[in-house]
Amino acid sequence: MDKKRVYLDNSSTTAVLPEVVKEMTPYFSDIFGNASSFHHFGREAKKALDASRIKIAELINATPDEVFFTGCGTESDNIAIFGVLNAYCKKGHIITTKIEHHAVLYSFRHLEKQGYKVTYLEVDKDGVISAEDLKKAVAEDTLFVSVMHANNEVGALQPIAEIAAALNEINSKRKEKIYFHTDSVQTAGKLKIDVKKLGVDLLSMSGHKFGGPKGVGVLYVKRGTKIESVTFGGHHENGLRPGTENVAGIVGAAKALEIANSALDEHDKHIFFLREKLKKGILETIPEVIINGSGSRAVSNILNVSFNYIEGEALLLKLDMKGIAASSGSACATGEPSHVLAAMRADPVAAQGAVRFSFSYNNTEEEVDYVLSVLPEIVQSLRNMSPVWRSKKQ
Amino acid sequence: MDKKRVYLDNSSTTAVLPEVVKEMTPYFSDIFGNASSFHHFGREAKKALDASRIKIAELINATPDEVFFTGCGTESDNIAIFGVLNAYCKKGHIITTKIEHHAVLYSFRHLEKQGYKVTYLEVDKDGVISAEDLKKAVAEDTLFVSVMHANNEVGALQPIAEIAAALNEINSKRKEKIYFHTDSVQTAGKLKIDVKKLGVDLLSMSGHKFGGPKGVGVLYVKRGTKIESVTFGGHHENGLRPGTENVAGIVGAAKALEIANSALDEHDKHIFFLREKLKKGILETIPEVIINGSGSRAVSNILNVSFNYIEGEALLLKLDMKGIAASSGSACATGEPSHVLAAMRADPVAAQGAVRFSFSYNNTEEEVDYVLSVLPEIVQSLRNMSPVWRSKKQ
Ligand SMILES: Cc1ncc(COP(=O)(O)O)c(C=O)c1O
Ligand SMILES: Cc1ncc(COP(=O)(O)O)c(C=O)c1O
Repeated sequence: MDKKRVYLDNSSTTAVLPEVVKEMTPYFSDIFGNASSFHHFGREAKKALDASRIKIAELINATPDEVFFTGCGTESDNIAIFGVLNAYCKKGHIITTKIEHHAVLYSFRHLEKQGYKVTYLEVDKDGVISAEDLKKAVAEDTLFVSVMHANNEVGALQPIAEIAAALNEINSKRKEKIYFHTDSVQTAGKLKIDVKKLGVDLLSMSGHKFGGPKGVGVLYVKRGTKIESVTFGGHHENGLRPGTENVAGIVGAAKALEIANSALDEHDKHIFFLREKLKKGILETIPEVIINGSGSRAVSNILNVSFNYIEGEALLLKLDMKGIAASSGSACATGEPSHVLAAMRADPVAAQGAVRFSFSYNNTEEEVDYVLSVLPEIVQSLRNMSPVWRSKKQ
Repeated sequence: MDKKRVYLDNSSTTAVLPEVVKEMTPYFSDIFGNASSFHHFGREAKKALDASRIKIAELINATPDEVFFTGCGTESDNIAIFGVLNAYCKKGHIITTKIEHHAVLYSFRHLEKQGYKVTYLEVDKDGVISAEDLKKAVAEDTLFVSVMHANNEVGALQPIAEIAAALNEINSKRKEKIYFHTDSVQTAGKLKIDVKKLGVDLLSMSGHKFGGPKGVGVLYVKRGTKIESVTFGGHHENGLRPGTENVAGIVGAAKALEIANSALDEHDKHIFFLREKLKKGILETIPEVIINGSGSRAVSNILNVSFNYIEGEALLLKLDMKGIAASSGSACATGEPSHVLAAMRADPVAAQGAVRFSFSYNNTEEEVDYVLSVLPEIVQSLRNMSPVWRSKKQ
């Protein structure tokens, strides 16, 4: 008996697209050489590696020498942050936001312990920082800024281009450049990433978030950026990330981004339709819910909803029993209260009832209908177990 | 017209075994969840991750909580070294050898620049260090020792168990433990790795060296070892290596090690036979060659030969034109003179003519025959272009 399965946790990870698996497969057992080897087997692998680099460069409006492959989005973030800061010969002030993914946030916390001064920018109720705030936060000794492109829990889009413009102006009057990094893990494959238009110096992506395989990160580093490797070994990736390149995975990530980018608008329209349908359905059928973050200032694929009087975890469990996969926000921090909702000044109790539904373009309207057919009843049954809810209803 | 292709560069990387590809495949598009997710998709991925960890733990005589997955062998080495040293709250003395892979060697050079005192142990003419030397090198403030299990260029096996025993004795008389790491990237899947018998605290492996996919490293960390993560992010791998786990790759690496270990002796016998046949054939048909390293103190799969009066690179090119893939020692350091042969005090000119043939158990006797049928003529033709050789022959 095949159980109905609806996967609405695409911000956590996505299925690898069948075309991507097909593209990767020859690189396991046939074109299996080490891309650093001189011989035929190595050259064939190098060719695939180069082609993938060119493909990604074209897709993000960079040049191939600005594209580096890593082992995951987290590693891309870490190399961006520590790589640039280690290249300065001094400590100083660095800026990020309160709503970054832990890959950035915990890196900054670590730097803080090491003696860096850190500004964690506040967000508004939709989870968006103000470029004005950022400008004001810049000090004489500011070295580095990292602001995520879209938040992974609520989808809030940050004003990256605006920040870049502000930093550009500041940089034009300074001797030492402030470098600007963005974590684009949640936007790559969903929005058109144009590093020139965004105006960033460094940008991170992760293959498994857009239909590519797990285990491949991408880091864009603008030509001229002073950056040091943070791990040590061979000359791979122009010395920035040593370790035999995962050719099959890289080929897959490039193909996945190509496929995603080939129909961004169409996919976005579909995803937006599904999200709005789910949102509307929830608002119409379930009382006392809060939508976290505003759809108009966010990516289209995330719907974060607080169901008052219940625990998000309990709701997720019940949904899972119905074959529906959603999450409490961040797969790698399950169990903790959300630092993102806290920064958005969400009511802490409501935040406990938060659930993230995240879509891919492979989701269907039928799936949303199915969720809407079971969700109200689940919420009701959980609320019936809540003393607060019961006393309120009496 | 299909060209004959003989791959004798298995120490650089190996083809993924077909059974391994088969084992990995479901984890791309079907069981694709994030292993950190609570729901069905996540639990299925977690199950596969756990099973892989248990499998590898059993194969190396460790417990599952001692097995960590990383993005490559280089990363395993880096985490072992920096992870342990960062957990000490002070700098001190560290010991390694002159013949380590760059993943270890350059990590130590970096630490040296940061103020650590480093001893780089000498090797004998076969590329083997002396445990006695190591014992003598240990000082009051020694914190960490890293000695590779087998060298990647010449195959030289190091006396790991003997070193561990010596360090154990030293540790029993000290308050602060000296941790011992070995880079087993070249031995995993070739020799039985038993971390207890080896007596190490940390041990690195890399999936693509034993028939697994590229992009998966393994790090064994003995229970109780003080170690800190060197990158920052989610709680993956018990906090030691953040980043969404590459489930498919990890499943593949575990399967590959299982397959390799299922017939270690048989494979070793076959590989030894092939290597000895190639060695004998070369010695019989080509004058003025030097075998670098002694087969009796080395893994069976590597034959490193210097062909006097010619450049290794030129020979590799000619071999490649005949469809034969070999290497000059290390795929990630092509072009540089070998630090390993230099440490073995090989004649620098002879070292320039060094070529590494490295076997897997999928190589055949027929392939060796083919190499022997073309090699003497190639060497002769290259030597004929060498003025030194020509003047010598007159
Ligand atoms: C002895 C040794 N250590 C470490 C490595 C690094 O492994 P990887 O390329 O998977 O990072 C290699 C191979 O390149 C090696 O031979
Ligand atoms: C915004 C953001 N940054 C970084 C990451 C880390 O990516 P990975 O798990 O591939 O290391 C994630 C996903 O987990 C993310 O959502």
